[in-house]
Amino acid sequence: MGNKITARKEDYSKWYNDIVSEAGLAESSDVRGCMVIKPYGFSIWELMKSQLDKMFKETGHENAYFPLFVPKSLFEAEEKNAEGFAKECAIVTHYRLKNDPDKKGKLIIDPDSKLEEELIVRPTSEAIIWKTYKNWIQSYRDLPILINQWANVVRWEMRTRLFLRTAEFLWQEGHTAHATKEEALNETKLINDIYAEFAEKYMAMPVVKGYKSESERFAGAEETLCIEALMQDGKALQAGTSHFLGQNFAKAFDVKFADKSGKLEYVWATSWGVSTRLMGALIMSHSDDNGLVLPPFLAPTQVILIPVIKAKESSDQIVERTNEIHSKLKDLGVRVKIDDRENISLGFKLNDSEVKGIPMRIVIGLKEIENNSADIFYRHDMSKINSSFDKIVDKIFDSIELIQDNMIKLSNERLKSNTHEVDSYDDFKNLIESQSGFVIAGWDGTKETEEAIKNETKATIRCIPENIDSKGVTCIYSGKPAAHKVIFSKSY
Amino acid sequence: MGNKITARKEDYSKWYNDIVSEAGLAESSDVRGCMVIKPYGFSIWELMKSQLDKMFKETGHENAYFPLFVPKSLFEAEEKNAEGFAKECAIVTHYRLKNDPDKKGKLIIDPDSKLEEELIVRPTSEAIIWKTYKNWIQSYRDLPILINQWANVVRWEMRTRLFLRTAEFLWQEGHTAHATKEEALNETKLINDIYAEFAEKYMAMPVVKGYKSESERFAGAEETLCIEALMQDGKALQAGTSHFLGQNFAKAFDVKFADKSGKLEYVWATSWGVSTRLMGALIMSHSDDNGLVLPPFLAPTQVILIPVIKAKESSDQIVERTNEIHSKLKDLGVRVKIDDRENISLGFKLNDSEVKGIPMRIVIGLKEIENNSADIFYRHDMSKINSSFDKIVDKIFDSIELIQDNMIKLSNERLKSNTHEVDSYDDFKNLIESQSGFVIAGWDGTKETEEAIKNETKATIRCIPENIDSKGVTCIYSGKPAAHKVIFSKSY
Repeated sequence: MGNKITARKEDYSKWYNDIVSEAGLAESSDVRGCMVIKPYGFSIWELMKSQLDKMFKETGHENAYFPLFVPKSLFEAEEKNAEGFAKECAIVTHYRLKNDPDKKGKLIIDPDSKLEEELIVRPTSEAIIWKTYKNWIQSYRDLPILINQWANVVRWEMRTRLFLRTAEFLWQEGHTAHATKEEALNETKLINDIYAEFAEKYMAMPVVKGYKSESERFAGAEETLCIEALMQDGKALQAGTSHFLGQNFAKAFDVKFADKSGKLEYVWATSWGVSTRLMGALIMSHSDDNGLVLPPFLAPTQVILIPVIKAKESSDQIVERTNEIHSKLKDLGVRVKIDDRENISLGFKLNDSEVKGIPMRIVIGLKEIENNSADIFYRHDMSKINSSFDKIVDKIFDSIELIQDNMIKLSNERLKSNTHEVDSYDDFKNLIESQSGFVIAGWDGTKETEEAIKNETKATIRCIPENIDSKGVTCIYSGKPAAHKVIFSKSY
Repeated sequence: MGNKITARKEDYSKWYNDIVSEAGLAESSDVRGCMVIKPYGFSIWELMKSQLDKMFKETGHENAYFPLFVPKSLFEAEEKNAEGFAKECAIVTHYRLKNDPDKKGKLIIDPDSKLEEELIVRPTSEAIIWKTYKNWIQSYRDLPILINQWANVVRWEMRTRLFLRTAEFLWQEGHTAHATKEEALNETKLINDIYAEFAEKYMAMPVVKGYKSESERFAGAEETLCIEALMQDGKALQAGTSHFLGQNFAKAFDVKFADKSGKLEYVWATSWGVSTRLMGALIMSHSDDNGLVLPPFLAPTQVILIPVIKAKESSDQIVERTNEIHSKLKDLGVRVKIDDRENISLGFKLNDSEVKGIPMRIVIGLKEIENNSADIFYRHDMSKINSSFDKIVDKIFDSIELIQDNMIKLSNERLKSNTHEVDSYDDFKNLIESQSGFVIAGWDGTKETEEAIKNETKATIRCIPENIDSKGVTCIYSGKPAAHKVIFSKSY
């Protein structure tokens, strides 16, 4: 067969692109930095979306939809936020085209359609949403507001990579409003915990939870919580962020509420998001040189059945057996498909299912009918077990959780074996240079140290993990007492 | 109590706006022509979306995602399509803001960030999608492509109304590619039938299916099929369209495939869509002067339980009974909620459930506990039936289909009694002027007649219905032999 996927060792970055392309997940478009998410890639995203949506709703959040455009005057209202996004905004300036008088069949901008005020294509929606919340909030009875939106956003990136960094991407952005600081802080943490649970349980991708250093915070936030995952090349990937926005947006848009005593107070805010970047994280967490590897919980097809018909005599039996397994699995809620495409070789089908990362594959031909058993092929570790046909449906069904658990275990081990603690800057530099991974070290808490380490090693503070004691620890760089033990890594 | 909804007779248009506002469905935003879809409105849209998505997938369609932006050179490639949308396009010309040197804290467009080629915010995605399909299609084996996308689009409308006509709206757009004309025509029809089934079965909104006259066709289409619904004020509303695009886009983007004999042929195309406009149709189909009326299949909350606790003695019994009904209904898959908000009067809660169109309401207080029975209040006809507590769960469950059927029946009757056939222009004008509705009449098939009738009466040809014989019929306007019997109406 020979698939077209570059080996990781040879060129990790090319390997990633090959997986995205060969598995049919996404491709670049004619629009600079914007991707086309192909049906197979999108069906994985739909599964992610549906699980996250369920988790948000179970914790009291509702979906809504706010405008794509942000008038410039709203955009610039919260200064830090505006400053953070100003350099990467798509800006709408006109609303009409007209025929080009010089070139038949061509169009030009109609200069008479210039907008009085420019519209920014949302890079994030705090501004437009807080302008709206102003009208919704008068008293403590109107709080909390717990709203999420699934939407597209645009950030003009100069260097893009499919899923990981694109000019337009799909995401969810939660925007909540609270009466107290404590409640908003709890919300920020609740969501970061949901993100971590989703990553670990569904993506089979363990993460470290923590908060960002000031310089890595979201523009306009007072605190940013995050989940950080470790990719196979030893680089970290920020997979989700949850921001405590303090009263910054409430002040920028003058959003006050009357508390129980009638006193007017500014409202407390959070915002939080995960995006199609998670697709990149999922791909890089598990895939191998044969193609995509998907955890069964997020696999659009969990099981593929391939009937192999060589002679007419056995055809009925094979088809019957295949259909029987298919319908029993379907009844159990398993996402199962039959690959009975004609004029396509078995070799091609086997390779196709591997490249696409379908967790289980069962080939059913004459031999299997005669033996009354078939092999269940497990994509994640390329192993096989044989099962009699009378037990195969149960075996497949049980395997869904077993594979998922196994993948979680493997990922946890990888994370553990690639996380190191150091107490000297030499050890730190060696580790970062040789293999990166997560490197835990003392940091004195200053921007200067953070900056110097970044410049010298390209490693950044990924997060300040929750619940790590830093007593008696010194900063690897300055030798001063450490303010925190933090996680450094090279990153995406 | 007294709700704030204007009576239909008094001012139909204000009635509509009041429903949208009082039921908490949507509101205007700070962005010209763009709406905020509020959580309750969005939850109805989510139910619509999920049902339609299921129907598309059951007929072999997959979802994908294509870029928000269309480079101008692609946009203008299919000339008729470009011409149709050129006058209502949001156009991105720059990608960066910078600090205004004259005004601290303000931003201006960075003139150095001017794009070499302008980007159109998609008003529809044929252009960007067919540019993509070009790379996906080489042979007949690559066909058909059956793709749908759920997305936001922008059409710069001057006069906007919430849901019915907004500059940005949410929709689904299907884009399919086929090897033969026949297959593409069948797809166009299949989808129009799905739209009709969805409207009738789920929205309880009967529609007339048919095709558009040439002047009402989608820009770039060779045939447009549509479903047309009749609103309570006698005006028609186009609720969905399905276009046979011929080979127009294949030719514009040079998309050819090799057929089985190896001969290169242009690919045949369809596109089809329904949008958040359906929300407007749903609202106007059933609602009354008390507020929104929702068919149970699309009601986010199908049943509301209101416990009324006046004395401590009975409190436990009331709460217990309410919880019991709630949990039994939940187990049956009914969307049920308890309104146990404190410090809110019963009157307010009753009114709230009516304004929001919750199909069934059960109040449970001391009297109900003593009688061992409660009233089930039906929102759609404001009637009540009494049920003993041991039968109430079954009664409520069965009522879901009964209400849905009843609403379909009522809507069908309304459609029937507001559809008239005429054979003279005088009768036609009288009907259109007095009550509009659907008016069936002979049309000679010319643009001139269509135009003249529109100018004189404001009525347009809504569609040329399938399967109506026009033999021996004459045109009401010209007196010439009719090419078709068509449906005229004033419309949204």
